[in-house]
Amino acid sequence: MDALKYVSQEEAINIDLELFNEYKYSVDQLMELAGLSCATAIAKCFSFETISNKAILVCCGPGNNGGDGLVCARHLKLFDYNVSVYYPKRTDKDLYKNLTHQCEVMDIPVVSDLPKNDAMNKFGLIVDALFGFSFVPPVRAAFLPVIELMKTTKLPIASIDIPSGWDIEKGEPVEGGIKPELLISLTAPKLCAKLYSGKYHYLGGRFVPPKLEHKYGLCLPKYPGTECCILLSFNL
Amino acid sequence: MDALKYVSQEEAINIDLELFNEYKYSVDQLMELAGLSCATAIAKCFSFETISNKAILVCCGPGNNGGDGLVCARHLKLFDYNVSVYYPKRTDKDLYKNLTHQCEVMDIPVVSDLPKNDAMNKFGLIVDALFGFSFVPPVRAAFLPVIELMKTTKLPIASIDIPSGWDIEKGEPVEGGIKPELLISLTAPKLCAKLYSGKYHYLGGRFVPPKLEHKYGLCLPKYPGTECCILLSFNL
Repeated sequence: MDALKYVSQEEAINIDLELFNEYKYSVDQLMELAGLSCATAIAKCFSFETISNKAILVCCGPGNNGGDGLVCARHLKLFDYNVSVYYPKRTDKDLYKNLTHQCEVMDIPVVSDLPKNDAMNKFGLIVDALFGFSFVPPVRAAFLPVIELMKTTKLPIASIDIPSGWDIEKGEPVEGGIKPELLISLTAPKLCAKLYSGKYHYLGGRFVPPKLEHKYGLCLPKYPGTECCILLSFNL
Repeated sequence: MDALKYVSQEEAINIDLELFNEYKYSVDQLMELAGLSCATAIAKCFSFETISNKAILVCCGPGNNGGDGLVCARHLKLFDYNVSVYYPKRTDKDLYKNLTHQCEVMDIPVVSDLPKNDAMNKFGLIVDALFGFSFVPPVRAAFLPVIELMKTTKLPIASIDIPSGWDIEKGEPVEGGIKPELLISLTAPKLCAKLYSGKYHYLGGRFVPPKLEHKYGLCLPKYPGTECCILLSFNL
């Protein structure tokens, strides 16, 4: 079997476009499956016992990565975690408003201000759903505080698809970036994931049609049974 | 803990309406999760070894139950089963056209004619996704042949939400109905499921907000871990 491919930013963008335009998936469908696979990988790596108060802060950016985060937050809540969402720049589209509403009616607080020290201390894990594969540096001013928090926190971080602030191909910025303990690559890992040396690397988003996989030579691993995510590597 | 509630047809319809109108879920989202949970329950009950050629015929009706079936078919294909879809009355809505397209581009044959004897013999399992909780008897003429086939076949049947042709509250028709080996109730079991005496009864559709659960007194069981379905009963 050939080795798993790490895709460029351009390939990631084209794969995404094909999923919608050629394969006719809706954003709702794929975001639901992607967010569910993230929540599942997080629950596998961070059991109730390992994170204080079972409390998770999901930090959501303005784009699709943030949308994956909102879905992930809802499923984590259904898995019985205590979930809060930090969502500083809400996206003015029906899908995002509905995803936010779905969180709020499940008693997930959705806040626009970054929790201060005392409030931060109650969390046991941060989910980084700020920027995805279309990110181009530098980080916009509004998101500098949360990136800085994630660079300095002692809490473990789980990043969805990309460690936010990293270059999609070149990886961690030279001035130092966030260092997630879990990275969940979606659809296929991006080039920056080759440079990831955190504890857990998972792949999620089990929806890639075989024809699309072959066209891009992705050589995806075989997901076990009915699992929606798969462990790619584990470093002690 | 109070006993699991079996809901009436009217309650099922109202719960569905609330999920869309009050909780702002899209049909795409819930159908994706429902279909995934059906595919997962089917894979748990019917391993590759137990069904001939790993071959499954998914019979889809014209409504949402058929949509769940199309999603289920796609996930079963991703789980490596050989899947075909019988879809005699295609629904002329974008969502349904797209779900059908997603199957076809994954090399799932979608046919309008019921497979004849020889072609039927290659299958090891029939998935019944014809009618859901809004069904009111009698069965329309176009679906009588497939119902008759399912009543007389020796193949095991997995029914999505309702054994098709059954009254949602009163169960199997007096003249005899289909007898699925697996019933996957979605969201909450309907009254007819109380009268189901087949081998496996699963519950899927892990997306019910706790407030909605409490409003209708559903007393849903606790899904294990990150599982998307749960075994309710098993009869040898």
